[in-house]
Amino acid sequence: MLELEKAIEVLQEAAGPVKETELLPLAEAAGRVLAEDIRAAYDQPPFDRSPLDGYAVRGEDTLSASDQQPVSLQVLGKIYAGQVFTGTVDKGQCVRLMTGSPIPEGADAVVRQEDTDFKPGQDQAGQVNIFKGVAPWQNYVYAGEDYHKGDLLLEKGTVLKGMQLGIIAGSGRDQVEVYRQPVITVISTGDEVVAPGGPLEAGKIYDANRFTVLGRLADLGFRKLESCHCQDDPEIMEDRIREAAKRSDLIITTGGVSVGEKDIMHQVMADLHGDKLFWRVSLKPGAPTLAFLTGERSVPVICLTGNPYGVAVNFELLVRPVLEKMSGNPAVRSKTRQCRLVNDSPKRGGVRRFMRGSYDEEEGQVRILTGSHASGTLSSMAASNCLVEIPGNGSGRAGDKVRVYLL
Amino acid sequence: MLELEKAIEVLQEAAGPVKETELLPLAEAAGRVLAEDIRAAYDQPPFDRSPLDGYAVRGEDTLSASDQQPVSLQVLGKIYAGQVFTGTVDKGQCVRLMTGSPIPEGADAVVRQEDTDFKPGQDQAGQVNIFKGVAPWQNYVYAGEDYHKGDLLLEKGTVLKGMQLGIIAGSGRDQVEVYRQPVITVISTGDEVVAPGGPLEAGKIYDANRFTVLGRLADLGFRKLESCHCQDDPEIMEDRIREAAKRSDLIITTGGVSVGEKDIMHQVMADLHGDKLFWRVSLKPGAPTLAFLTGERSVPVICLTGNPYGVAVNFELLVRPVLEKMSGNPAVRSKTRQCRLVNDSPKRGGVRRFMRGSYDEEEGQVRILTGSHASGTLSSMAASNCLVEIPGNGSGRAGDKVRVYLL
Repeated sequence: MLELEKAIEVLQEAAGPVKETELLPLAEAAGRVLAEDIRAAYDQPPFDRSPLDGYAVRGEDTLSASDQQPVSLQVLGKIYAGQVFTGTVDKGQCVRLMTGSPIPEGADAVVRQEDTDFKPGQDQAGQVNIFKGVAPWQNYVYAGEDYHKGDLLLEKGTVLKGMQLGIIAGSGRDQVEVYRQPVITVISTGDEVVAPGGPLEAGKIYDANRFTVLGRLADLGFRKLESCHCQDDPEIMEDRIREAAKRSDLIITTGGVSVGEKDIMHQVMADLHGDKLFWRVSLKPGAPTLAFLTGERSVPVICLTGNPYGVAVNFELLVRPVLEKMSGNPAVRSKTRQCRLVNDSPKRGGVRRFMRGSYDEEEGQVRILTGSHASGTLSSMAASNCLVEIPGNGSGRAGDKVRVYLL
Repeated sequence: MLELEKAIEVLQEAAGPVKETELLPLAEAAGRVLAEDIRAAYDQPPFDRSPLDGYAVRGEDTLSASDQQPVSLQVLGKIYAGQVFTGTVDKGQCVRLMTGSPIPEGADAVVRQEDTDFKPGQDQAGQVNIFKGVAPWQNYVYAGEDYHKGDLLLEKGTVLKGMQLGIIAGSGRDQVEVYRQPVITVISTGDEVVAPGGPLEAGKIYDANRFTVLGRLADLGFRKLESCHCQDDPEIMEDRIREAAKRSDLIITTGGVSVGEKDIMHQVMADLHGDKLFWRVSLKPGAPTLAFLTGERSVPVICLTGNPYGVAVNFELLVRPVLEKMSGNPAVRSKTRQCRLVNDSPKRGGVRRFMRGSYDEEEGQVRILTGSHASGTLSSMAASNCLVEIPGNGSGRAGDKVRVYLL
């Protein structure tokens, strides 16, 4: 049996990152991974501008200004943000401007309107009195103060969140090259399993696994998902996987991996001439996980156990690292914490186990949820916010340091 | 000027939760908020079943079994998971079954196949030898062991993640009633602002704000978004808001809220007969935030500053609490931490400030990013993972405890 870390390593090695890219409008690119460096096409700001409402002046004209002896300047005109004053400010002159207005030629500073005899609403006469002078380059925002043309703004591989989209828009781009999302196919198996929404015949159960996996993929931002259920018929399953391998980057199946007569996945792998990566991982639940590569594109097929709790646990431990590798998005990785266990684990020793827990971030501690821990039980997952790792070394008592995987 | 907490309270009071619901297929419901209680329509499991591959027996028949003196039972038949055995197991009889098979009438325990003379591949003769007995009810999973028909599985208001979708599917439902997402309209203003993708004329800048807000909304899972840019013309802006208020649950604008001649939002609010909630909040950046209600449905309009860093900060502080209230999704709330500041804040005292920071979860500390903190600068946000709150009381030195808002 493979150690968990080794199984993850094997899977990550086998799963190539998706290299194809697509050009998306900015508003559709949130959460995607940048496939190009974003460099500034312009200085930011693109021109010297005013940081406040006031008057663009030649600083030296105003240095002597005071309440008692204001300096009177000739107002050449008024410009709002977005407008341009085409003349030049000469000695004794100024231009009224607003926050964000370009500073006109000849001016080298801006006097705040509060330091003049400007009154709101009152339009400017030809002269304005300055009561407080400014030195050259005071209240003056230089072109390129934020960044210069050619500067690297965002590196290839960056995950695009809102702030990054604002930066890209501000640099003038309305489209961006991102990696396409991996296409993922989920196939649940089991003759006893029927799709929810229909009647429940005797001996059957509803298909939780397909929706747990689809839902977790959606939680993590994956949207290119296909899924179906397949009876325990190796030939049909082979067809399903063969078809899926043509258009998918990853195939996840549930069920059929143990040693019973209906555990068809071994035969399916053999008949597909699959390239086996491993069978069985040293952990509970989900030990019989099988993984292989198939098809011309060597698509990874991760075959999870059929028990619903095992599916949930193995998705976190084994599938997420593969998704991280394929998508290049580190946010997909499980977040882990080291913390203190507040109660004894009901099971200890033997194989490494993963139990449902309730993690308290503030206190830095975790409680294993008691009640049903039967491996087929999914409903108690609703109350847990993490998985607690109980190592196989016999530890797992109240007070022990344990690792938790946040859900 | 309103304190931030008071502004949040006023906004949350004004913003009603979205009450309308919609019925969604499970595979589309990830991340949505449940608008109904989910109760079990069936016992789970729906029938008494076997937890392993073996033989359904009457336990008392097997109690004396040992390697030396096996008990021989008559095999009545074989059932796989999903099949039903219609006969009854009588004294001296058994039925071969698999993990998940219903336990037939008459049987009260399951003997593991490893404890019999069963050999894989070899089909069953009419008899099987049991080498290790089981007590009645051993290896026996009762119907309803996970939950009973009528049990409350998930409460109204639960956020549907993968695990919850698995639970709902397992209970037999393939559709689920969720609250519809709020419709949110984003309108950026400013005559100096042009849409990215086009040419940049003199004196103009590209529209970062609209995409920062749209991107953050998308980060938080909101998908019903509309947006446009509007010149600094009150009449046009009034029309835009009037139209948006008919179909939106929240309107967010940027720019035009200060005291300059082009700060049109005050006039827009007045002309719309808007019900003013507040103007100006005691914080930097973003002090001049304006908020009012408009239209027949009293839609909240949150008018953010025009400066890009202010927009980013105020979205986190003021808009997210409103989104939480509207969506009923606590995951939308900003996550905050108390931690140690490792460097002096470049600005202290006066008004409460929010600076870009780099938070180290492991170490429980935060560093204020140095370099450009000019309020118009968005690009340095790319390197920050949190906002650091510097209170107005003069604290903000290395070693002080500060609050951070995770981005």
